[in-house]
Amino acid sequence: MPDIRLRLLLDPDGHIGPGRAELLEGIAALGSISAAGRAMGMSYRRAWELVEEMNRIFGRPVAETQAGGRQGGGARLTDLGQLVVTRFRSAEAAARRAVAEEMAALQKEVRREG
Amino acid sequence: MPDIRLRLLLDPDGHIGPGRAELLEGIAALGSISAAGRAMGMSYRRAWELVEEMNRIFGRPVAETQAGGRQGGGARLTDLGQLVVTRFRSAEAAARRAVAEEMAALQKEVRREG
Repeated sequence: MPDIRLRLLLDPDGHIGPGRAELLEGIAALGSISAAGRAMGMSYRRAWELVEEMNRIFGRPVAETQAGGRQGGGARLTDLGQLVVTRFRSAEAAARRAVAEEMAALQKEVRREG
Repeated sequence: MPDIRLRLLLDPDGHIGPGRAELLEGIAALGSISAAGRAMGMSYRRAWELVEEMNRIFGRPVAETQAGGRQGGGARLTDLGQLVVTRFRSAEAAARRAVAEEMAALQKEVRREG
């Protein structure tokens, strides 16, 4: 099935894309930044970097860690983190609907083999 | 200004994104694959690879070279190449409109400095 990949580029810099949204969803579901990263085949370090990059973009945390800090305990999304996921997924769904006709026209031009 | 970056993922594989659309537009404007690539800071080799990847996706050429072949002469878009540009830019514009509200909500959360 054809699909889209959407990235929202914020001003003055930084972006939210499907990987970051999925990481936040993983944190919400698994209660841990490292587990959420691992579920996406991402290192602990990389998952933390992405969370910290989002914290930087918004100037406050998208996730908060509980007792144990970075090395232990759990993590959960802040209200901001939840808003980022919700808004991104909603934007993605709206974009998918909006491009359906153009996408179908392009897909029709793809030669199928076999 | 916030903006989007949209990539259309075709079935069974391959994609059209803003870089490929811009390259096709450059070929139409400049009449040369290498000049179009150069205008984007891209090597001759890379520009050709992208054109050949699009030819592969659609099973026929998005651009045709004129007398001189790869080393000389000029190039222009085929009807297919023109269709790809038009459909992609139209999809991008539709997606931009479709995500405007969600984008504004996210942008509002970005802390501005200074």
